[in-house]
Amino acid sequence: MKIAILGFGTVGRGVDQIVAGLDGVDVVRILDLPDRCEGPRMTSDYSQILDDPTIEVVLECMGGIEPAHTFICQALEAGKSVVTSNKAVVAAHFAEFAQLAREHGVSLLIEATCGGGIPWIASIEKARRIDAISSISGIMNGTTNFIVDAMIKNDADFAETLSRAQELGYAEADPSADIDGIDVKNKTIIAVNVAFDTLCNPDIPVTGIRNLTKADLDLFADRGLTVKLLGRAVQEDGGYAASVEPVALSERSLEANVPANFNLVSLEGATVGPLKFYGQGAGSLPTGNAMVQDVLDLACGRRPHYDFSRDLVFDPSLLSGDYVFRTTMPAPQDAERYADGAWLVRNIDPVAARALLSDALAQDPASFMAVLSQED
Amino acid sequence: MKIAILGFGTVGRGVDQIVAGLDGVDVVRILDLPDRCEGPRMTSDYSQILDDPTIEVVLECMGGIEPAHTFICQALEAGKSVVTSNKAVVAAHFAEFAQLAREHGVSLLIEATCGGGIPWIASIEKARRIDAISSISGIMNGTTNFIVDAMIKNDADFAETLSRAQELGYAEADPSADIDGIDVKNKTIIAVNVAFDTLCNPDIPVTGIRNLTKADLDLFADRGLTVKLLGRAVQEDGGYAASVEPVALSERSLEANVPANFNLVSLEGATVGPLKFYGQGAGSLPTGNAMVQDVLDLACGRRPHYDFSRDLVFDPSLLSGDYVFRTTMPAPQDAERYADGAWLVRNIDPVAARALLSDALAQDPASFMAVLSQED
Repeated sequence: MKIAILGFGTVGRGVDQIVAGLDGVDVVRILDLPDRCEGPRMTSDYSQILDDPTIEVVLECMGGIEPAHTFICQALEAGKSVVTSNKAVVAAHFAEFAQLAREHGVSLLIEATCGGGIPWIASIEKARRIDAISSISGIMNGTTNFIVDAMIKNDADFAETLSRAQELGYAEADPSADIDGIDVKNKTIIAVNVAFDTLCNPDIPVTGIRNLTKADLDLFADRGLTVKLLGRAVQEDGGYAASVEPVALSERSLEANVPANFNLVSLEGATVGPLKFYGQGAGSLPTGNAMVQDVLDLACGRRPHYDFSRDLVFDPSLLSGDYVFRTTMPAPQDAERYADGAWLVRNIDPVAARALLSDALAQDPASFMAVLSQED
Repeated sequence: MKIAILGFGTVGRGVDQIVAGLDGVDVVRILDLPDRCEGPRMTSDYSQILDDPTIEVVLECMGGIEPAHTFICQALEAGKSVVTSNKAVVAAHFAEFAQLAREHGVSLLIEATCGGGIPWIASIEKARRIDAISSISGIMNGTTNFIVDAMIKNDADFAETLSRAQELGYAEADPSADIDGIDVKNKTIIAVNVAFDTLCNPDIPVTGIRNLTKADLDLFADRGLTVKLLGRAVQEDGGYAASVEPVALSERSLEANVPANFNLVSLEGATVGPLKFYGQGAGSLPTGNAMVQDVLDLACGRRPHYDFSRDLVFDPSLLSGDYVFRTTMPAPQDAERYADGAWLVRNIDPVAARALLSDALAQDPASFMAVLSQED
């Protein structure tokens, strides 16, 4: 099977290295910018890939929306299956890609968009062959998990830990997509689409960990809790909810004990019960592995079919919980004291909680919010 | 696809319940003892299944070696694929079944033999399409995990906790297969066969948790460690090792935080890195789910191919570690003091450790042994 790689960065190089050790798959073309093209396989002219009928699969690992969006559409229209690791473009254009794939009799495979090397999307698809999936959730971003874990282990504050993560290559120079929850939002939207067979609301409430302090972690640790940034979604009785926010979980939960930059993602099915999957959520070889697994699945005849035809109503109350706000903004009337400088509002939904946090941030830009896990 | 179920106990009923909710799969025959046969689908005459050409797949969930072994062979010889949840018969006869399946152009699927509803065998097979798998390990027995977890949470000793597990249906009236590690041994052998493509030594060292006391757990807890019964295997440079024994792990490890009767199984691949899978390791619906997933895989054309042709040498030194013995037997010369009444022998292999434990048990039948995890 002849394949082409779009974008020869961290992930693209991982794919190339893995394919070099396999029989039956060959990287025949690699697209990158003109000044990065070396050797006979590399080109900066996409038509050399689109017009080559021997190339069956295009692996897009450029990242970003454009030109990735256009290139994916063109590949599908040219009758080539597409494997992508690009969560931003899939979260934004999943329905368009899925329809193009259907129309042209080819496939779109997206394992590498969520959870790096963890077989997460394939596991959701497998589980829903039998079960209605009632919830998905998890630690889907290694950068923020690394930061929280290092803050606890090194008794260090956010800023210095972020700097260290940047030095180690675990965080980007502009860390916003990670620490503000945008990366987790994209992954949560993709997982909702697949697990619930519906097009997820693009405006789910999102809160990151930019304002998390060591003192916040200590405050929760005194109560046996650890804070992790989770994407979460549930469905019930024709409705669904999804959110991205810091969650305070029991320190004896699996989530609380996920170290360094690892991911842990969960689903709950009616007959299989809860399943959790742990592994490297990013990186050249793990993410490359996920893309090559998709290629091998294609070679074995796996043809994921995404139609998003279920009409579920976005109902954030399905994720209602008890929210802690650490802020200098005075507590609203229905709040209880949680700790010095922190108050608790019980049983509000994540949209209402996010609105309350926005009010707090307007008065105290350092405000932090976390929801208490109900599992413990 | 028409299927037959052999054995209508806990797992068989789970399969039947799940299949009733699916299109395209029908349970047309169920084999059980004559006095248990009710309704037109049930029979006590296996020839009614073997001789029915419309039945494509036989699901064996009788347990035990015979007649399960004979029935599986006869089904494969009759050109029917076999899906089984029976770890004892697969651990004992895997090579024979795999060869018969090959000869008759049918398949043997064994997801439900290990880890209940966790997609563990399929994940090993998927990982090794790309990676050499360097290790597998995990909590593969829910009964013993329940016992250890309840001993810690209830500050209770082994005997009373075992009784409670029996009342709750988490342990059998004769709990030996669970608490002496036989169940984990069978699962470890099966996983080694699949992960390393070799026939595992049937005499791997096995130690259970029958002699674990609350005082032992406290002794390790003082050092930040929790004891779990693990199956473990590694391969390296043409050799492999496997063992089943209590392991003392960091209380911050995922394994230490697996609650109740859940399982957590791990693999390590060259490019994907470590992957861990958590879920219900037993039970009617989770194990039934795993068997039905195998049926759906067959319907999609998945044909696992087991040949065990790799010639690996059993080398227990690959799992050498530091072993703690709590026993009244005097410490051997090369031992160090670990705690009052417990000594430590460094860097011995699991076969040597098991021999030392046997010596200790001859002098002190209450002796307990655990290996210190090297991951922490």
